[in-house]
Amino acid sequence: MPELPMTVPADGLPARVRIHEVGARDGLQNEKTTVPTEIKAEFIRRLAAAGLTTIEATSFVHPKWVPQLADAEALFPQISQLPVDLPVLVPNDRGLDRALALGATRIAVFASATESFAKANLNRTVDESLKMFEPVVTRAKEHKAHVRGYLSMCFGDPWEGPVPIPQVVRVAKALHTMGCDELSLGDTIGVATPGHVKALLAALNEAQVPTSALAVHFHDTYGQALANTLAALQHGVTTVDASAGGLGGCPFAKSATGNLATEDLVWMLQGLGIDTGTDLGQLVATSAWLAGHLGRPSPSRTVRALAREELSHKEQ
Amino acid sequence: MPELPMTVPADGLPARVRIHEVGARDGLQNEKTTVPTEIKAEFIRRLAAAGLTTIEATSFVHPKWVPQLADAEALFPQISQLPVDLPVLVPNDRGLDRALALGATRIAVFASATESFAKANLNRTVDESLKMFEPVVTRAKEHKAHVRGYLSMCFGDPWEGPVPIPQVVRVAKALHTMGCDELSLGDTIGVATPGHVKALLAALNEAQVPTSALAVHFHDTYGQALANTLAALQHGVTTVDASAGGLGGCPFAKSATGNLATEDLVWMLQGLGIDTGTDLGQLVATSAWLAGHLGRPSPSRTVRALAREELSHKEQ
Repeated sequence: MPELPMTVPADGLPARVRIHEVGARDGLQNEKTTVPTEIKAEFIRRLAAAGLTTIEATSFVHPKWVPQLADAEALFPQISQLPVDLPVLVPNDRGLDRALALGATRIAVFASATESFAKANLNRTVDESLKMFEPVVTRAKEHKAHVRGYLSMCFGDPWEGPVPIPQVVRVAKALHTMGCDELSLGDTIGVATPGHVKALLAALNEAQVPTSALAVHFHDTYGQALANTLAALQHGVTTVDASAGGLGGCPFAKSATGNLATEDLVWMLQGLGIDTGTDLGQLVATSAWLAGHLGRPSPSRTVRALAREELSHKEQ
Repeated sequence: MPELPMTVPADGLPARVRIHEVGARDGLQNEKTTVPTEIKAEFIRRLAAAGLTTIEATSFVHPKWVPQLADAEALFPQISQLPVDLPVLVPNDRGLDRALALGATRIAVFASATESFAKANLNRTVDESLKMFEPVVTRAKEHKAHVRGYLSMCFGDPWEGPVPIPQVVRVAKALHTMGCDELSLGDTIGVATPGHVKALLAALNEAQVPTSALAVHFHDTYGQALANTLAALQHGVTTVDASAGGLGGCPFAKSATGNLATEDLVWMLQGLGIDTGTDLGQLVATSAWLAGHLGRPSPSRTVRALAREELSHKEQ
């Protein structure tokens, strides 16, 4: 019996959702095991074959800070011909140079909604970090690159607690005005709940940041990621970040385990009849294959259920 | 920094939700470790102290079938004076006799929406099982007992696949007509998605089963339980089943791991400003304490995050 959800649409949801796959970057950057370049390239190829169309590939951050992604220059040319969007993270001007030199056409910068995390992650105040990003974004736009702005700690911060909505709106608005084509609203420590999600989205609309420019990025630390995603879809959001197999988290943020697993997201969207263009079986197989390389089971509930299923069929 | 969700209500949700706690029955019945009676009693006392008002206590099924709950007669008198509702599961006439003899005032019967699971779990057809429950429910009502009807496999069945909504409605309607005060709609294998949940609830209303008589019982096998709960709340459901620490599952149903964890549910409801009367910290402490007796970590993400938090505070 192939276990797939029965498709029953619900009112008021988008017909199509673009999944922004972050496993190869946000996921692998936070895994203890450093994955060989060949395996990363194969991982991205398999994700593309499974139907994902936006696959964040790597980060051009200094290797000292993220040794897991120190092979960005070696990796990118191996995958750059894939017929999918391959955004890369760039922390600053130097990172942008490296990305553009390799022909990257989509870049992302990584900002924080809170002073504490800006300090911990970027060693700058929020305003100093915005000042640092401004020339990066401007230059990327001059090169016709698509720019995504990550905004972390949009709901709660491990040092500051709940983050006031106006504070998030101020930084989001600055990134949008600066030229970011898309903003990814990150619940870095996973504390958000659906009313909070809807309130932030509404406040951003109020500040003239349109829903079409917004993506959501939820973590499953408290099991809330998929309920929050449903709330965001009900608000009209059509871009959702997820990590194949639930890879990753954030090493600088206390308790920030568990990106929303792509497979758990696809299960829900498929059940709702929302088109993602992906093949759930291939995604599960890819995450199970990578989990083998990482030497531990996937934290995705769907991967575990379906991989177990697969196994029990083989045993019969 | 106490990590609690920021409270931001959302439109169209109930002001109050009653949690029907199933950990001590549905949870422990599916754990490999048999917990001593004293620990069970203490577990239920702690759940009550944490503010839960409906705690399913045990099952008066034949000990041969569920050895984990063979101590029902010894357990029930130890907790029956608690100022909370303590429903007990009764499989048949004999079980009802045992429950009534101990003074139980709330009972539950356990039906199936599918022929395959009725056969596997009850060794009867669906109609034969309804016929078996009828005198049990009638007699319970004569004793002024509150009767809950569990209806399992409401969304998918491991043998039959997706379960047609009219089939679920037929059995639900029969249980309601028979006299069940409340129906708990079980997604025993965890495959449901939010549109399916809303469609089933609407179909039941159409068949004159009011939402006020409905509870939802979701499993987290594919990570969907909390998103489905949100959909049910949006439909007006105010009774939600959950299992402290995510205890249990169903040993007869393939892949049926993971009841929705009470703590993950409370996190969401607290964030939404929905009153449950519970203390999240006490719930987490109780589940962490029981996990110690079971010799394994809790599957609840909230319990793991907050228990880890607690630990790291102690280490500092």
